[in-house]
Amino acid sequence: MIKVGIIGANGYTGFELMRLLSSHPGAEVVFAASRSLAGQKVADTYPTLKGFYGDMLYEDVDLKRAAKCDVVFACLPHGQSAEICGKLIDGGTKVVDLSADYRYDDIDLYEKTYKIEHPRKDLAKEAVYGLPEYNRDKIAGARLIGNPGCYVTASVLALRPLTEAGIINKRTVIIDAKSGTSGAGRKGDVAYNFNEVDGNFKAYGVTTHRHTTEIEEKSGAVVTFTPHLLTIKRGILATVYCDLIGNEKDVDAAYARYEKEPFVHYLGSALPDIKTAAGSNCCYIGAKYEEKTGRLIVVSCIDNLIKGASGQAVQNMNVMFGLPETTGLPRVGFHL
Amino acid sequence: MIKVGIIGANGYTGFELMRLLSSHPGAEVVFAASRSLAGQKVADTYPTLKGFYGDMLYEDVDLKRAAKCDVVFACLPHGQSAEICGKLIDGGTKVVDLSADYRYDDIDLYEKTYKIEHPRKDLAKEAVYGLPEYNRDKIAGARLIGNPGCYVTASVLALRPLTEAGIINKRTVIIDAKSGTSGAGRKGDVAYNFNEVDGNFKAYGVTTHRHTTEIEEKSGAVVTFTPHLLTIKRGILATVYCDLIGNEKDVDAAYARYEKEPFVHYLGSALPDIKTAAGSNCCYIGAKYEEKTGRLIVVSCIDNLIKGASGQAVQNMNVMFGLPETTGLPRVGFHL
Amino acid sequence: MIKVGIIGANGYTGFELMRLLSSHPGAEVVFAASRSLAGQKVADTYPTLKGFYGDMLYEDVDLKRAAKCDVVFACLPHGQSAEICGKLIDGGTKVVDLSADYRYDDIDLYEKTYKIEHPRKDLAKEAVYGLPEYNRDKIAGARLIGNPGCYVTASVLALRPLTEAGIINKRTVIIDAKSGTSGAGRKGDVAYNFNEVDGNFKAYGVTTHRHTTEIEEKSGAVVTFTPHLLTIKRGILATVYCDLIGNEKDVDAAYARYEKEPFVHYLGSALPDIKTAAGSNCCYIGAKYEEKTGRLIVVSCIDNLIKGASGQAVQNMNVMFGLPETTGLPRVGFHL
Amino acid sequence: MIKVGIIGANGYTGFELMRLLSSHPGAEVVFAASRSLAGQKVADTYPTLKGFYGDMLYEDVDLKRAAKCDVVFACLPHGQSAEICGKLIDGGTKVVDLSADYRYDDIDLYEKTYKIEHPRKDLAKEAVYGLPEYNRDKIAGARLIGNPGCYVTASVLALRPLTEAGIINKRTVIIDAKSGTSGAGRKGDVAYNFNEVDGNFKAYGVTTHRHTTEIEEKSGAVVTFTPHLLTIKRGILATVYCDLIGNEKDVDAAYARYEKEPFVHYLGSALPDIKTAAGSNCCYIGAKYEEKTGRLIVVSCIDNLIKGASGQAVQNMNVMFGLPETTGLPRVGFHL
Repeated sequence: MIKVGIIGANGYTGFELMRLLSSHPGAEVVFAASRSLAGQKVADTYPTLKGFYGDMLYEDVDLKRAAKCDVVFACLPHGQSAEICGKLIDGGTKVVDLSADYRYDDIDLYEKTYKIEHPRKDLAKEAVYGLPEYNRDKIAGARLIGNPGCYVTASVLALRPLTEAGIINKRTVIIDAKSGTSGAGRKGDVAYNFNEVDGNFKAYGVTTHRHTTEIEEKSGAVVTFTPHLLTIKRGILATVYCDLIGNEKDVDAAYARYEKEPFVHYLGSALPDIKTAAGSNCCYIGAKYEEKTGRLIVVSCIDNLIKGASGQAVQNMNVMFGLPETTGLPRVGFHL
Repeated sequence: MIKVGIIGANGYTGFELMRLLSSHPGAEVVFAASRSLAGQKVADTYPTLKGFYGDMLYEDVDLKRAAKCDVVFACLPHGQSAEICGKLIDGGTKVVDLSADYRYDDIDLYEKTYKIEHPRKDLAKEAVYGLPEYNRDKIAGARLIGNPGCYVTASVLALRPLTEAGIINKRTVIIDAKSGTSGAGRKGDVAYNFNEVDGNFKAYGVTTHRHTTEIEEKSGAVVTFTPHLLTIKRGILATVYCDLIGNEKDVDAAYARYEKEPFVHYLGSALPDIKTAAGSNCCYIGAKYEEKTGRLIVVSCIDNLIKGASGQAVQNMNVMFGLPETTGLPRVGFHL
Repeated sequence: MIKVGIIGANGYTGFELMRLLSSHPGAEVVFAASRSLAGQKVADTYPTLKGFYGDMLYEDVDLKRAAKCDVVFACLPHGQSAEICGKLIDGGTKVVDLSADYRYDDIDLYEKTYKIEHPRKDLAKEAVYGLPEYNRDKIAGARLIGNPGCYVTASVLALRPLTEAGIINKRTVIIDAKSGTSGAGRKGDVAYNFNEVDGNFKAYGVTTHRHTTEIEEKSGAVVTFTPHLLTIKRGILATVYCDLIGNEKDVDAAYARYEKEPFVHYLGSALPDIKTAAGSNCCYIGAKYEEKTGRLIVVSCIDNLIKGASGQAVQNMNVMFGLPETTGLPRVGFHL
Repeated sequence: MIKVGIIGANGYTGFELMRLLSSHPGAEVVFAASRSLAGQKVADTYPTLKGFYGDMLYEDVDLKRAAKCDVVFACLPHGQSAEICGKLIDGGTKVVDLSADYRYDDIDLYEKTYKIEHPRKDLAKEAVYGLPEYNRDKIAGARLIGNPGCYVTASVLALRPLTEAGIINKRTVIIDAKSGTSGAGRKGDVAYNFNEVDGNFKAYGVTTHRHTTEIEEKSGAVVTFTPHLLTIKRGILATVYCDLIGNEKDVDAAYARYEKEPFVHYLGSALPDIKTAAGSNCCYIGAKYEEKTGRLIVVSCIDNLIKGASGQAVQNMNVMFGLPETTGLPRVGFHL
């Protein structure tokens, strides 16, 4: 039984880890830490945890306690995460960091994007980017994983087969992405009040969203990235516009690389919707060619909290600890 | 043109007054005050006000400015409202108070319910309860209106014909009420975050909700009142359980009193839903008798922000100023 | 590995069985039948099934095929189900019937409620009511289970401890219940179009809903039952009004019977909301006493598709086949 | 008082006309026709119409009855509309056609797009495209108006100032549009069942949507048009990607043409959301320039049922009959 610790357990990705791990046969949460809620019952914040976790308490962020875990999931804001994860690694604990701090190959790009100096450049170089479909072998041997961003997972799984195959113009890519509101986290902010969100839809962070540089680094394309906020809780749909260089058949060939993946499914010219993915750890991808303009329109869907965060983190843990990669991960979404 | 002032204009009832009055042919908003947002554009908080109100600013709560209005709508928390309204009345301005401060006939009951001493008992006695279907004549001559609560409007319009006709047991009434979240106001509170509200439904204030005493005073019944929070923005549906004393036909006769009302519609044994009322200033009522238990089940629906607050306030203004009662008020709901 | 068949697999309860069983370690779906969709891929109707079930097809309702399963879940309309289940039993296959056909002890009451003659009175007598918290031992030895209705599960788990303890007036019970729209099934009907349901809320089947007699038989109370339709997909909240005969402490004592249950949780005077239960196989119950009227107000929540249908069916299967009762069943809800 | 007839009054645009006209001071609905619902009360389909329209019935589509109206709004499917509108015009009645039949300048393009032969090419040439911000003078003298499509209104109001100013590359425009589900109409179709739509989001009609050619004709650009379906009832947000040829300042200059428009508002680099527009007859537009790629990202929002259909139709009627253009039209949205 893998002993799991979660730091920053009070947020939505922390909750989602506790939910997913409640039915994982090879791992159990032994330490759920939250600085702000230390001493309170986890079920006071998430009543649905009562049935399985009973009267478990959030604990303080105590690195000694954390060090007794086999692996720690860090669900902290970028900037804060790097140092804490560093100390855990120094102490010999494996870490999956869900923040942006250990995702970038190019540390300058990280520092420019997040306007922050990286406190552990040594580890930033060592850390492995936790996208198992591309980095499986490295993840297996890693002690520190930079778990990909939600928009990035949806975008890169769609784009990278095309850039690797060299069949699109890498300088004219547009990603028009739409996310459920859980992506904004558990906030007490009028802007996220039900009355303000229900019935609404908006673009935000246009030309300035931080995930842009991570998408560009991991896909190798120059990207105009426009995120929007949906009136749903979970799920991301990214509509990707590329100018095709090769011909249509190259597209299917490029995506054939996912054929044996348990969590990435290419549907040809059938385009997935959010419900196909939401509730599961799967990414679904479809692509359609527009003769008139020579454009390829790719649609990619994931659950932002699962494949876009906590599920992918568990997938990485499975790989790191030699378990079958699908262990304890949902392969069918909620639909309802 | 009636010059209208709104104090506490930044909340949802204040917004709704600005929306309704934008298409009222005989009144215009000349003063929108908000202590917390003074100096900011109204369209910064509610962008949809831009098209009609342009760059209008929220002003500070300046009683001299307010005194130049023909009527002031006070959209303030109970307790704070009584004094400000009192000063406006002292200065000769008519006032419609949307708080609970001037609603009660029994001032002791108010003080017990709200745990507060009433600062203007003189005016509390003079104030007229703003339910036009019962108090039309008094409202016409009033200078201070206590505008009814939202749950109370739905409940009392359903119950009072029955208690006045003496055909139900007044001591065994249960009101199981369900409200849209706009009733909770414009709050930056995790509990009202979209992610927490969407897909949820809950009871709250069970056995303790403050509207209970107002319902009891205005209907003449002893009431178990259980409010619930719906995953919708607008609308209240109250399911009322009464033990019938008279016979079934008495029910239709009792509700016949609404026949000529423009804003209250009795549907017989057809039960209304929230969509029938939401977006309009109308209350719809239906009633069904259960042979097995001798119970009458009455369903009553309103839009909590319109007939339950701002629309009823405008209706009261129309009566106070001698305009046709329906002027500028929506008689058809949104449906969509 | 238990070989599972599902008849009527195209509806929501059928889908939910396929979803739940995709992560059940001791059972697998080997036969998914749907008369109307025979020959089509299950993923054409529910695209999210693609990732796990791949190109599996709905098959025709072939009883020989079904007979090769260890257990069949029947997700058919009442009336149609009795006969098919009967033939399966005759052929030696165990059956969990999710329709109403094998739920009643009193067959006359069934026939009166559903206006139908029961074609297999022999089996109706033998069938065991599948509420494990009350019938665990009988279920273990049964070959035919009548799986409880969704409203009934929420209502009876709340009421039966009180009626068994004799501490409420059994003749004055009111159940004001609210259900998500998945309870109405997968219908192409304007009344369930998103535009008609979103933002709405309504009572339906007032004084006439069929679940009333099942609630009365299983709880031993005379009940006014008023169901309402929520603007959410999953979950039931039942607000139960009883006249308390005993005193307040008796209430906690009565519910103590659930202390060791993995799927029923009593919260004292804290009242659960739908999110506490939705997505899990748990029922949460809270109760509050109103001094003024002597009434007890009980709130009970379940997920209508899980504890109210497919999850409970799997729980029954676990008991029938000697697996730990919680195997493969979610004990933590979605929250998001 | 303008006497208004509505043909196809049972759909959502017909309903919306009845709702808007219920508070229009210079027009009244005297004839509401629906072939499928003739003889039924309008309030049976839309209960909220009860309060204002009482027991009004849908009538059969009787052209003699229609001919007694001053103006008829035709809310019929494309193809069916052309002929009926033609007969009304022949009989001397003015017509606003909400279908696509009289929108195109290029009749060949219409026939190719809708795969239909136009039965009244004579009138198709005479008809005026009902976008008042561009065609006000012609509308004033017209007897037949082709009322623009919803996606087209949002797209063309955003694009045309840019193409007319010649500051974008007209061959590289992408419109990623998102619409509320009321755009799909009042359908009894499983795909629009609440359970299927809530929590979902999808692209549809990718590369093939019919509005593409109308957008291209009215904007003068070659367009990749990708519509998506939102989990909300009302509103369209179009995210438009253009390659800017001129410089940033030209953008503000181009949109200055809307400065005096009551229903089109340019917000500079502030981007509108759906709530800004929904419930009003306004279109809100904002534009942001991306240095890195030279792209201009324009966001445009309308209410698909109001400015995108019935409100614009009333605006056209106001112009045709010499009323102030804003008469009876909402300039403030619902927000809630």
